[in-house]
Amino acid sequence: MEKIGFIGLGIMGKPMALNLLKAGFPVGVLASSQASGILKDAGAEVWPDAAALAAGSDIVITMLPDSPQVEEVVNSGVLADIRTGSLFIDMSTIAPLVARQLFESMQAKGVEALDAPVSGGQVGAEGATLSIMVGGNAPAFAWALPVFQAMGKNIVHIGEAGAGQTTKACNQMIVGQTIQAVAEAFTLAQKAGVDLAKMREVLLGGFAQSRILDLHGQRIIDGNFKPGFKIKLHQKDINIALQTGGELQLTLPGTETVAKQMQAAMQQGNGELDHSALFLALKD
Amino acid sequence: MEKIGFIGLGIMGKPMALNLLKAGFPVGVLASSQASGILKDAGAEVWPDAAALAAGSDIVITMLPDSPQVEEVVNSGVLADIRTGSLFIDMSTIAPLVARQLFESMQAKGVEALDAPVSGGQVGAEGATLSIMVGGNAPAFAWALPVFQAMGKNIVHIGEAGAGQTTKACNQMIVGQTIQAVAEAFTLAQKAGVDLAKMREVLLGGFAQSRILDLHGQRIIDGNFKPGFKIKLHQKDINIALQTGGELQLTLPGTETVAKQMQAAMQQGNGELDHSALFLALKD
Repeated sequence: MEKIGFIGLGIMGKPMALNLLKAGFPVGVLASSQASGILKDAGAEVWPDAAALAAGSDIVITMLPDSPQVEEVVNSGVLADIRTGSLFIDMSTIAPLVARQLFESMQAKGVEALDAPVSGGQVGAEGATLSIMVGGNAPAFAWALPVFQAMGKNIVHIGEAGAGQTTKACNQMIVGQTIQAVAEAFTLAQKAGVDLAKMREVLLGGFAQSRILDLHGQRIIDGNFKPGFKIKLHQKDINIALQTGGELQLTLPGTETVAKQMQAAMQQGNGELDHSALFLALKD
Repeated sequence: MEKIGFIGLGIMGKPMALNLLKAGFPVGVLASSQASGILKDAGAEVWPDAAALAAGSDIVITMLPDSPQVEEVVNSGVLADIRTGSLFIDMSTIAPLVARQLFESMQAKGVEALDAPVSGGQVGAEGATLSIMVGGNAPAFAWALPVFQAMGKNIVHIGEAGAGQTTKACNQMIVGQTIQAVAEAFTLAQKAGVDLAKMREVLLGGFAQSRILDLHGQRIIDGNFKPGFKIKLHQKDINIALQTGGELQLTLPGTETVAKQMQAAMQQGNGELDHSALFLALKD
């Protein structure tokens, strides 16, 4: 089986890398990664730096917070020593434009590249049930498929380089606006004296049904805003969506509204809370 | 079984009244209702006016487009001759404030009243799978339950008079914003050259999942904006939500954004199209 170098062992990356080990893939990690000890105990090889990890791997995967972190680890390490004929997969959520630039850089080194951001959160990462939306060439996707299957369930090759990130941006636009919608409905209902649990129950049976109403509706009822997925990270993703929309000369009024609410939530000091805490930005 | 007088035999009311007949309830309708002939053929009794229908019924149900139509039929007919000890159920979507006024008027005549708006559209009305959100007194709800069960599936007594309409307003806020969210995502994806069917497929597996993404996402892909539920009716419901929010001193920025988009859709001449045609308001 291919040797996989996995960079980025955070809330998402750690369980994803553990699932690769569980599926039988040899996995290499960076000594500097926060969970490298846990991965080592589970059987991973530990590399001193990104260049060495890239040189020693058939497939390099990155799972990092944002575009700058991915660009840095690639440009100051991975790209130097990654093997011709190997495969680079970025599973972070970054700008589609940066994903296409990374693809070009890799192609220039004779390396295939996929952008493969995920949806499903920590629960999906731990349970290997992530949705994975993939951009890049078809042969590279076919090569990577068994690797994705060790981490996710709903795996779709969307299109060419960048298409995975574009789809993820769309995902985050929908998720953000749905949270805002649920938050406004629950705010109105609460102020009108309506029982929120009963409302959630009946609304889940109709056209208002969504995974957000189900999970985050319950969070709002419980006042449980422990992340989960932090507002500050969702804000980053919404900005990617607006930036991408701007490049395409689009006006996205609902997404802009959510961006403003996220800004308000950050100013409230709620950036570290779960994105369902957009609810709190409506209360004064 | 109770004799039911059913006023309002439109896209929703006709199949609902037919389902009551199918369940064995004697049903009376107005001669002036557009589908009175079809209902008569199915076994309904036909009454010349609302006062006579109310006098001849144990339960009076209204299913009309908006508050003014309900107020008119009640104040210029039903209220005059409705029997003390009978039950009035308004299943239209109207302002919570008007629902509470109707409740007071009925109580003054010794009549119980429920506000019981529905969600699930024409498909839900025809299949007797509507979600029904009910406001009013508990004994009246218990009395009405077998009647609701002949028309719907997910039936919840939310709270006191008006609570059903408040919940419906919340439903429409969520549905409208979710459509807007899906419309913006699909607009961005389409302009970026992403395959919309593939995107819909992968997004349905993650946190962006919703009944709207499923059904209206498919409508957008198919370019099928035949109603369904008309934008002009949803606009009315969004205005009810904003009005109710205003009465409660709330700011609802996402709902306001959708109201603007619906206004734009109306100005495009798309008020008669399905509410999924909010998608078209983003294209210029």
